[in-house]
Amino acid sequence: MVIVGALYFFNSRQPVSTSSSSSSPSSVQVINQNNQQGEYRSVISNGNYLTSSARGMTVTTESNFNAQSFELSLNELSKRFFSTRRYIFQEGQYLSSDLLSSWLDRYSNSNRSGLNPPDNGRTDDSRNPYYLQSIEENDFMNQVNGSKLNLEGMTIGLAMNRIDHYTRTPGGPEYTQNISRAEMVAQGRTAAAKVLRRLRAMNQIPKNLPILIVMYENAPEDSLAGGAPYAYYLSKSGNTIGNWTNVNFQNIVFPKSDTDRSPIGTQDNTNFVNFKNEIQNFFPNISYATAQAHYENGSLNGLNININTSFYSVSEIKAFATYISETAPKYFNNSIPIRISLSASNQLMAVITKDANSSYRIIYLYSY
Amino acid sequence: MVIVGALYFFNSRQPVSTSSSSSSPSSVQVINQNNQQGEYRSVISNGNYLTSSARGMTVTTESNFNAQSFELSLNELSKRFFSTRRYIFQEGQYLSSDLLSSWLDRYSNSNRSGLNPPDNGRTDDSRNPYYLQSIEENDFMNQVNGSKLNLEGMTIGLAMNRIDHYTRTPGGPEYTQNISRAEMVAQGRTAAAKVLRRLRAMNQIPKNLPILIVMYENAPEDSLAGGAPYAYYLSKSGNTIGNWTNVNFQNIVFPKSDTDRSPIGTQDNTNFVNFKNEIQNFFPNISYATAQAHYENGSLNGLNININTSFYSVSEIKAFATYISETAPKYFNNSIPIRISLSASNQLMAVITKDANSSYRIIYLYSY
Repeated sequence: MVIVGALYFFNSRQPVSTSSSSSSPSSVQVINQNNQQGEYRSVISNGNYLTSSARGMTVTTESNFNAQSFELSLNELSKRFFSTRRYIFQEGQYLSSDLLSSWLDRYSNSNRSGLNPPDNGRTDDSRNPYYLQSIEENDFMNQVNGSKLNLEGMTIGLAMNRIDHYTRTPGGPEYTQNISRAEMVAQGRTAAAKVLRRLRAMNQIPKNLPILIVMYENAPEDSLAGGAPYAYYLSKSGNTIGNWTNVNFQNIVFPKSDTDRSPIGTQDNTNFVNFKNEIQNFFPNISYATAQAHYENGSLNGLNININTSFYSVSEIKAFATYISETAPKYFNNSIPIRISLSASNQLMAVITKDANSSYRIIYLYSY
Repeated sequence: MVIVGALYFFNSRQPVSTSSSSSSPSSVQVINQNNQQGEYRSVISNGNYLTSSARGMTVTTESNFNAQSFELSLNELSKRFFSTRRYIFQEGQYLSSDLLSSWLDRYSNSNRSGLNPPDNGRTDDSRNPYYLQSIEENDFMNQVNGSKLNLEGMTIGLAMNRIDHYTRTPGGPEYTQNISRAEMVAQGRTAAAKVLRRLRAMNQIPKNLPILIVMYENAPEDSLAGGAPYAYYLSKSGNTIGNWTNVNFQNIVFPKSDTDRSPIGTQDNTNFVNFKNEIQNFFPNISYATAQAHYENGSLNGLNININTSFYSVSEIKAFATYISETAPKYFNNSIPIRISLSASNQLMAVITKDANSSYRIIYLYSY
């Protein structure tokens, strides 16, 4: 039990009850009592949303796509084990930023908790790269006796590099070092085993706390989509990791580049290109149309499309958005959720969305 | 009849029929056959959305807010007279950009069609200001015999200035000249009468074409909302204007500035400020929250709220968006449509919308 004290429900803003075992006088509210749109409830403590001091901690700056995608992956995979009905989401409160900073650093005489390999002094492909880029903790709480929140689950995400960037001299030109998939997986397993052991040794963490460990592969820095999780392990107790479960998720950018020879998404890419050609034919002012395609087990499971035009008239945007909503169903299966963002000169003008198995809906972003 | 020839319906992409009186061989498609979301169908001609050569024509550059708001006003008022079920929207095809350019210019010996007053040589408040800022034409078509489009209605909007900006020497500092409301209204009536007479004299325009003339007052350039229409006249035939109908629309920015003494929106502004304070209390990282409030006949009829935060975590944005959707109903009447845009560091992260008398829905703009 980590957060105790008076518990406020959102709508009444009155204390419901006070825990008699209150160790720190704090007030706790829960947002999203009704699990709107399948999302977790979350925690307001002492009048503020409870943030993690360690969130967003990475070895070097990550692309926005990886950072968002990593967090979303943890969120989605957590839902498989920690139901949104039962658990309340809390940003990680157990791994401090100092602690994570030392874990993410290289191993050295002065930092024996470093999970990245020691500096071997080399400045070419024989150097030891940074394999582990980022660690994120999510806590899953349960509200007991309607008055306090107990830690009842945890997700730990490890984001791994396939490409490490480095300089030979401070401020010098940047070099890249590729990491094979096998090497990334092996290094990730070693790091995850150490992380689990360290968590199980922490007194504040209940002995048999279910801990979900998610391994995530970062996309290259210049990718227009984030990376994807590739494995997870749910530890119910104990400090060793058994068999990993592979996760077959991919995020692909359409139109596929000429150098992209991967078999996945070939037909979907053709559909997207045909869709793009059809709308470009009718509205020739389109400066670009790209998509992020999300695959789970080889099946297209979501599509974010960005269309940028040079239109500026309200009427034309209305006509174009409507046209898109009439054209898209011919090219994309009704079972996948789709979000199409329509911008004019990079200003978002309309969002056309559909959930799985539902119809398209247009939201205009015009001003009064 | 202005557009004739083969007519394509969107879904079949096959010619439905060919007009025997085809004067120009063009193919016409109609977007939005089902009047989705109460919007007009619109016209695709020869494979392209039919734009107006004159759209966006103004004396000087207009603020984005005025330009969008002017167009939206014409669209909304047109719906009162030209039903979206019967009529198809077409961008103005009768007033060319050269023609409108001469109309919007000052009257002079070399430009006897100028609707703005002659230059009297003064460079202070005794100068003749530009009263008329912009003219926009919308055409309303009817599809007859399933094969061709006839012009059956037209809306002409005249956007008037309350503040005119000028320089005394080319490239010199900018001065402003205020125009009283009475002067704007009088000058607008004179200009509108001339415009109607000129339209009725055009051979291409059917004799008894219903023409809706909408008078619009621009907001000051630095306003965070657009101006509003203030009067309209529907001319069923003939070239004189009878009694104008006043339109009581207003767009107001919340929180109201200290200098805003207008009685309208006082309670709504208080509600907004209380809403803002409540969410700011829980999420202190909000850098600003403002709203555009749209009034019709003194009643709040729509609200666009912009909230900008410095959050970047997916979880916090989810929690905040959910929190907003739970908090807003306490402050805003369920009968008004509301759109809340939630940005982090000026990047749009979520849009929380509700139509009139419906519940809030969150659309996230995350990447994969």
